[in-house]
Amino acid sequence: MSILVVGSVFFDSIETLHGKADRALGGAATYFAVAASFFAPVRMVAAVGEDFPCEELDFLSRRGIDLAGLQIRPGLTGSWAGRYHEDMNQRDTLQLDLNVFADFQPQVPASYRDAQYVFLANIDPRLQAMVLDQLAAPGLVGCDTMNHWISGSRGELEQLLGRVDVLVINDEEAQLLSGERNVVRAARRLLAMGPRRVLIKRGEYGVIQFSADSVFAVPAFPLEEVFDPTGAGDSFAGGFMGELARSGDTSEAGLRRAIVYGSVIASFVVEDFGMRRLRALTPELIERRFRQFISLTDVNGN
Amino acid sequence: MSILVVGSVFFDSIETLHGKADRALGGAATYFAVAASFFAPVRMVAAVGEDFPCEELDFLSRRGIDLAGLQIRPGLTGSWAGRYHEDMNQRDTLQLDLNVFADFQPQVPASYRDAQYVFLANIDPRLQAMVLDQLAAPGLVGCDTMNHWISGSRGELEQLLGRVDVLVINDEEAQLLSGERNVVRAARRLLAMGPRRVLIKRGEYGVIQFSADSVFAVPAFPLEEVFDPTGAGDSFAGGFMGELARSGDTSEAGLRRAIVYGSVIASFVVEDFGMRRLRALTPELIERRFRQFISLTDVNGN
Repeated sequence: MSILVVGSVFFDSIETLHGKADRALGGAATYFAVAASFFAPVRMVAAVGEDFPCEELDFLSRRGIDLAGLQIRPGLTGSWAGRYHEDMNQRDTLQLDLNVFADFQPQVPASYRDAQYVFLANIDPRLQAMVLDQLAAPGLVGCDTMNHWISGSRGELEQLLGRVDVLVINDEEAQLLSGERNVVRAARRLLAMGPRRVLIKRGEYGVIQFSADSVFAVPAFPLEEVFDPTGAGDSFAGGFMGELARSGDTSEAGLRRAIVYGSVIASFVVEDFGMRRLRALTPELIERRFRQFISLTDVNGN
Repeated sequence: MSILVVGSVFFDSIETLHGKADRALGGAATYFAVAASFFAPVRMVAAVGEDFPCEELDFLSRRGIDLAGLQIRPGLTGSWAGRYHEDMNQRDTLQLDLNVFADFQPQVPASYRDAQYVFLANIDPRLQAMVLDQLAAPGLVGCDTMNHWISGSRGELEQLLGRVDVLVINDEEAQLLSGERNVVRAARRLLAMGPRRVLIKRGEYGVIQFSADSVFAVPAFPLEEVFDPTGAGDSFAGGFMGELARSGDTSEAGLRRAIVYGSVIASFVVEDFGMRRLRALTPELIERRFRQFISLTDVNGN
């Protein structure tokens, strides 16, 4: 089963303690799509400018990403520059130019309309809703958002949440959206807004998933060095949705396995700058780390 | 198999957002001993003043804690007062009176000398070493410490670590002792100091265990309300060592199960002020939450 993702494609300039990357391929939809492409075919709805390099279009295509929904528009691709603090959990935005992304209106190609697995990466909830409006009968809808929309477009976001199956956000966003500091109470409130499941990303501490009658928590894969956290959350979502689409198993056990795959992909992404580690990744490396991850968390394991 | 613990017995006055407790029974050795007593007989080496209430001696005895090593000395029992910040991860010490604990010299009774499972709770590393000197041939030695000793008695502490099997400390202490911010690199350095295993407590994010050739990570049990975090770390250690002594299984699988039992006990402790929840705890409640904990972390679970 293929996956449809809508979101941003950007150039990122990143600085961390370990070095810097200049105008590297980035954006939530890009990280999601490349991560998911290791599991299932991906269809992308996004917009880039005429400056977007052919090599990168080629890279995405070779990863099995269908670009029929990628608008190439007059103007420049959006770009972002940021600098991480020493502890990598905080960053400052140094520059943000939305460029062609400023008036992006997602158009879902006819060939995408039967999409079953859909991920609404972090963009204006109005645009996320527009995508759902153009789909026939999506089977499983995942959704991300950020503080900007929670504060500025709460009404639209809450309306959207009624149409979402799995909300995937980080702990800070969960707190802001729910008004609850405690993660259990926050998740309960978020579930009451509509989604059947809430996945809360806790950075280096892993992920915790809530449904009405279950809780599942996994640590993050422990790494000796985090070079660049950019894209970790979107890649998590890509691995998670990718594994769901590959297995077609949306039972509790299927979702738990998908969360581990998402965590595995995220653990690779942060090992190098930007997309670099994803470009060199293979299914064999993913499966090997999946097995390591299972042994990391198995109470009866050795 | 019984467990020997050396450490502090204090009166704690605690203030959190949820209320306060005045001069409640506390101290690292107390939390450890009461937690461990649900798994195995406990022997305690500590000192209290003449003001220590008979009811509390009676409570400890009824929990199967051998008090032959508890010195009752002229003067007052040590006392501490603290106030937690809103996020419960930080606290301010409002008052600290060591009283009879100030010149505590641990005396191990002859009846304790054959101790196999030994826990050196957070006290001066010189006193921790004195306890080991008085034992015949301990089988498994666990050890805690704190910033005060890491900064002020590093030489003595490092010497002690060569005699320790399992170091149980929190993430801040691990960072300070190792000089490494990253948890994997910190653990590697700590292992090089002597202990065969390092358990790093991460508060609401759980525990991560390192040995030379394995890593095991568990989340904390998610709670809707944390009333008072006092004693959580010491109770974790008590449940952990308690389960090891009960099962006699110090294989990797045995240690992992013990870590889950420690996490279970800690999750109860924080649900009420001071020792209150531990006083009302039963083996049935512990086993029930152990099963919930397994389901919380089981990748193949439902």
